Parts: sequence; C-alpha cells; structure tokens
Amino acid sequence: MPAIAFGRLDDSFSIGSLKAYLAEFISTLLFVFAGVGSAIAYNKLTSDASLDPAGLVAVAVCHGFALFVAVAVGANISGGHVNPAVTFGLAVGGQITLLTGLFYWIAQLLGSIVACFLLKVVTGGLAIPTHGVAAGVGAIEGVVMEIVITFALVYTVYATAADPKKGALGTIAPIAIGFIVGANILAAGPFSGGSMNPARSFGPACGQR
Amino acid sequence: MPAIAFGRLDDSFSIGSLKAYLAEFISTLLFVFAGVGSAIAYNKLTSDASLDPAGLVAVAVCHGFALFVAVAVGANISGGHVNPAVTFGLAVGGQITLLTGLFYWIAQLLGSIVACFLLKVVTGGLAIPTHGVAAGVGAIEGVVMEIVITFALVYTVYATAADPKKGALGTIAPIAIGFIVGANILAAGPFSGGSMNPARSFGPACGQR
Amino acid sequence: MPAIAFGRLDDSFSIGSLKAYLAEFISTLLFVFAGVGSAIAYNKLTSDASLDPAGLVAVAVCHGFALFVAVAVGANISGGHVNPAVTFGLAVGGQITLLTGLFYWIAQLLGSIVACFLLKVVTGGLAIPTHGVAAGVGAIEGVVMEIVITFALVYTVYATAADPKKGALGTIAPIAIGFIVGANILAAGPFSGGSMNPARSFGPACGQR
Amino acid sequence: MPAIAFGRLDDSFSIGSLKAYLAEFISTLLFVFAGVGSAIAYNKLTSDASLDPAGLVAVAVCHGFALFVAVAVGANISGGHVNPAVTFGLAVGGQITLLTGLFYWIAQLLGSIVACFLLKVVTGGLAIPTHGVAAGVGAIEGVVMEIVITFALVYTVYATAADPKKGALGTIAPIAIGFIVGANILAAGPFSGGSMNPARSFGPACGQR
Repeated sequence: MPAIAFGRLDDSFSIGSLKAYLAEFISTLLFVFAGVGSAIAYNKLTSDASLDPAGLVAVAVCHGFALFVAVAVGANISGGHVNPAVTFGLAVGGQITLLTGLFYWIAQLLGSIVACFLLKVVTGGLAIPTHGVAAGVGAIEGVVMEIVITFALVYTVYATAADPKKGALGTIAPIAIGFIVGANILAAGPFSGGSMNPARSFGPACGQR
Repeated sequence: MPAIAFGRLDDSFSIGSLKAYLAEFISTLLFVFAGVGSAIAYNKLTSDASLDPAGLVAVAVCHGFALFVAVAVGANISGGHVNPAVTFGLAVGGQITLLTGLFYWIAQLLGSIVACFLLKVVTGGLAIPTHGVAAGVGAIEGVVMEIVITFALVYTVYATAADPKKGALGTIAPIAIGFIVGANILAAGPFSGGSMNPARSFGPACGQR
Repeated sequence: MPAIAFGRLDDSFSIGSLKAYLAEFISTLLFVFAGVGSAIAYNKLTSDASLDPAGLVAVAVCHGFALFVAVAVGANISGGHVNPAVTFGLAVGGQITLLTGLFYWIAQLLGSIVACFLLKVVTGGLAIPTHGVAAGVGAIEGVVMEIVITFALVYTVYATAADPKKGALGTIAPIAIGFIVGANILAAGPFSGGSMNPARSFGPACGQR
Repeated sequence: MPAIAFGRLDDSFSIGSLKAYLAEFISTLLFVFAGVGSAIAYNKLTSDASLDPAGLVAVAVCHGFALFVAVAVGANISGGHVNPAVTFGLAVGGQITLLTGLFYWIAQLLGSIVACFLLKVVTGGLAIPTHGVAAGVGAIEGVVMEIVITFALVYTVYATAADPKKGALGTIAPIAIGFIVGANILAAGPFSGGSMNPARSFGPACGQR
C-alpha cells in the first residue's frame, strides 16, 4: 500500500488535475441535485408528510441510481469520488495526495452548494431538507450509524474501484458504489438520515440560510 | 473534439443510416410505450388520483429500466440516442452530422407518436398524460429544471458512451443512461414532469388530439 | 440470417440438448416461482385487495430481477430463453431448430407448472393468480398490448444476446432482458397483466384446477 | 466436478485463508447491517405496523442491493459467499474444503452477530426483527419455501460465479446473486421471511436476548 503523500502544488494545478476538479464539481452537483431533489419531491407530493416506506424507497433508489451515474461519469477523469469521505479514505491509502484531495473537497462542496442553490431556484423556493438524527435517536447513535455505513461505502470503493487487482469487478464498480448507498439509506434513513457523504450534507445546510 | 459537420445526403441515405433511423424509431417507440404506459397504468390503478410517492417510484423505475434497454438495443446500430436532445448534443460535438441528426429526430418523433397511438388503442382510449409544470411551479423554473437534468443526461452519454477513451465503462453505459433518467424523474417528476427528452414529450402532446 | 431449420432427432437428444432442456426447466421454474410468488405475496399482505402502485412495483421489480437471473443462469447452457415466445422468435431467425425448440417449450411449460404446484404447497393452498385482461379492457386490446410488449422482449433478446456482433453489450444482455419485462409490467400490468411469456401464463392456469 | 475435500489445517491458516475469513466477516456484517436495518427502519417509520407492499419493496431492494455489493467486495478475496448455505453448497461441489468452509461459517455468523449488536446500539435498543413463518403458514411449508429459494440462490452462484466456463457472465455475477435474493424476498417475505441464509437469520436470533 502506498504511503500518505502531501503532494506538490504543480501536480495539483496540472491540466489533468484541473479537469479532475471540474469533473468532481459536476458529478457532485448532479448527484446532490437528484438526491436532495427526491427528498423535496416527496415533501411536495405529500405536503410535507413524515416519511413513509414508499418515500424511503423513492429517496434511496434515487440516491443509488444517481450516485452510480455520478461515479461512472467521473471515473475516467477524477476517479469519481463524489464524496469528501471517499477522497479522505483514498488519501489515507496513498491513492491521492493530500493537496490534490483538498482541492477535490473544495470542488465537491461547491458542487453540492450549487446543486442546492439550483434546487432552491427550480422549486420556487421550497425548503431544502437537511440531514439530522430522527426524534428519539441520540447524537452518538447517529454518529456510529454514519461510521458503519460510511465504512461500507469506502470499503466498497477500495474493493471494486481502487484495488489494482480488481479485474472484471471494475466494470461494475460504479454500480456497486451507488447501490451500497441506496441499500444503506433504506436502513439508516429513518435514523441518521443516511448521508455517508459530507458534501451531500453540506450543500443543504448552506441552502437553509 | 471533431467539428460540427453538416453532412452529405448520400451518407444520410446509406443502408447503414437507414438501419439507424429504423433502430431509433423502434427504440423510441418501445421506450415511450413503456414510459407513458406506466403513467397511464398509475391513473388506471388509482382512478386518476394525484401522483403519490409509490406512483412516482413506479413511473421513474419504468422510465429508467426502459430507457436502459432502448439505448442498449440501439447501441450497435444507431448509437442508441432515443432522444432528440441527445442527438443534438452529439451533433454539437461532431459525433453525428446535422443532416443525419435531422433524420434521427424525425425517426424519434415518429416512434413516440406511434407509441402513443398504440397506447390509445390498447387502453381503450384512456387519456395520454402529457408533461407540464405542476401547480405552483413557474414556466421559467420548469425550464431551468429541465436544463439541469437534460445536461445530466447528455453529460452521461458523452462520458460513458461517446468518449473514445471510455474503456470498460462502455459496457455499463446503457444502464447509466437509463438510470440517470430514473433518478432525475424521482427529483423532477413532481415539478416539471422530468422529461429530458423532446420526443418523450412530443408523442403524448400529439396523442391529446 | 440463417434459415428456419427443422432439425434432427439425434441432435435434439444429444447430451448438450438434454442439459439445455434441464436448464430451461430450472430457469423457468425459478422465474415463475418468484414472479407468481410475488403476486401471491401481494394478495397475502393486503388480504386480496385490488392492485395498487406499490404492489405493481413489487410485482414488476420481482419479475425483472428474477428473469434477469433466470436468463443469466441459463445463458451458457441453453441460451437462457425461459420463454416459449423467445424460443419461437429465435427459431424463426434460425437460431434454434424447430425440433429442439419444441423440447424447449415442453421444458419451459413443465418448469412453470412445477413452480405453480410448489407455490400451491408452500402457501398452504392459496389461490394462484392468473393473467387476464382487466375490467374495461377488451380482448383485442389485451392481445395488441401483449404483441407490442412481447415484440419489445424478443427484439431485446435479438439485439443484446443473439446478435453475433453484440460485443460488450452481451455482458449486460441478461439484465436488459429482465428489465424490459420489469418496465413493461409497470405499463401493461393493469391492462393485460403484462405476461410476454406463454409459459408464465400457462403454469398458473394449470394451478387453478 | 472436483470431489469433496476435508482440507488441511495449514491451508486453512494460510495468510490467504485468514484474509478470506476477514473478508467474509466484513461482507456479512455489512449485508446483515443493511438488510436487518431496513426491517427495523420499516418498523420505525410505521410504528411497528404489519408489513405492506411498499415496505416489502424497501426490504427486498435493500437486501438485493446490499448482497450484490457484499458479494462484489468479497469476490476477489474470499469468493464472496456471505452465506453459510452458499459455502456448504460450494463445499459439496469441491470448490472449498470442509475445514476452510467451517471457518467461513464462523466468520459469517460472527459478522451477522456483530451487525445485529451494532444495530441494537445505533437504533437506541429497538427490537431486532427475526425470521419466522407468518401466521397461517405451517413449519413444513416454510421449510419447503426456503429450500426452493435457497436452491435458486446456490444455483445462481454456481452458474454465474463458480462455473469455470462462465466467461463474461462472471462480470455481472454479483448483481445476479444479489438480485435473485431481492426477487425471492418479494415472493417469500410474507410467508417464510425469505432468508436463504442461515447467517442472516442467526444474528437477529442472537440479538433477541
């Protein structure tokens, strides 16, 4: 396993790196637009009713499908992280330098903010739902939940996309990465919200103001 | 990136081109038949109730699955556009000539019209639901929504199917193209309808008369 | 395109052919067991309520997933037809001889009958739902509906699995074949039942007695 | 077909084998966490209402997606069994020795127990739903149901993953393995629970105490 590397500024500003930041920005924008959009759609269809199982399926399937595509369209340019937690996990494994990873973070957070700004515009100013622990769920429980499911996501990224010996598994890696998020939202949605993604949570929090 | 090309009539009437128009006609027919059919099915099951989250899942999953298959079955013959917006996007990138693209448009629109005519027959004359902005959503908001999600679709086509360096990603390209539409309908359905496809909207509009 | 061929008895009784009949029997059994089982499950959960959109999603997703797998597990042995209409379509295209196709039919119909017999046992004798046109849908409308969606299925089989020039598309062919059936059930389910498969309809009809 | 082999202790304690046990532990943990979590999520959203079709879709899709990913992430290390019944089926076919298979079982059962313990923690002590035959379903009917659907799962593993002649089918094998479980839960869920997996049932049973 390669060591953690800080990286050099000229690498982080190469044409390839700049393309990668743009790819992360666009992928995260499209993922958050669809994912958060599906939560707003539920509120619109039900006049802000509390979540029911059909709504949970709608939100989870939307996140699963959209993340699969966001990872796929970014895969050949930036690796398709679409998630600061994934970028961090890959930096720890030496798959990306800390400096380039920092710019990935900025691109991802900006993509999420722009997505929520666009959602605010296209929905005529409807509320942007944010992640948070549900009633009756403690902060620690929520944090442990997010640790387990975010581990599942980063483990999936390593085993199917980052592993140099992945072989044919790499062909379906974006589907696996999207669908583990879909599955975990079906489990964690009613407890911690099922984010697994700081950028996914950050944009809506900004959109609240 | 190749430049936009007008194209020549003899190319647009080659055997390969004629096969491609037929493939676009059939793919669009099958996609619109299933997609619009799922909206009619919801109305039949609920006696024309307003859309609820379970119905949104039904319509979105149907469009996602059907578009995936429509793109796949056309992929080796016409490229599997199934959508005038995709054909336009690829013409702008020089992937198809303007003239051939024009015939693609005609084939796609005809496929959609025939699909809606068939739906009118097989449902015993039930209403064909059309796309339109929902109550409380302005025309500009609806247009911006469609711009964002149609960009997501065309971007996905470029990154997974048209990119000459796509590699193994090309194997799952039709799934990605179908599923980004499924995801975006889950977000945009209750606002703009979530079309992303002029042909998908055109057939039902014709079917209203 | 190869011509239609009658075939010879010794070919139809080769070890390879006998294995193929067994593979068709098992694939069809597993597909019908899951598909018809999901319809019985809906009736059990809702005490035989009329179908609603959530139930339509359950039945359509079950058929789509199960057919994908049934086609996949049979692909390398029998080609994974799992459907007399597919076998007929491939015989017309010269992909299988009429005689061998006849034995495929028998294997598929037997698989479906055994699946429904098993369902009768494991559900403690619950009714096996059969396909039929819904109230207000004429017989001709139902037949035209099934013609359109069965054409979609056979066209998908040809374009993704039988085409010798299918290339990488062949890797996802079983998914496409399963999902076009899932999509078409979401459209046709409330009208004709959305069978696309004589064996799928035959077993439950036998199970009624 | 290779014969059943008992195996040798030094093989079962090689570095490769220890990695495989860890991979099975993690894969089973993540699968059971999501799958059982989705059942708890339904109970939370509906205040312990009896299962309805939307809830069945949520639970089945979660299991299908999560098992697909659990199999995929383990595929290159342990083969991705994630299920004592699969390990047993492969041992009978001589694909794994009995001794190594025994350690797979232990890893799978431990993964399931830890998953349920974590669920107990993160949900603040909510009940862990266990598998069991539904009201009106006899024990024998439940057993026969589980035999049929577990056969479907193991048959899928053999045809798509273990078969040395699987070819391109191996690329989508994890998806097929996950989705046959999703399909069968949609059929068997309201009768036997639709486990197909002793480890999936064992963890929740331990979590009851």
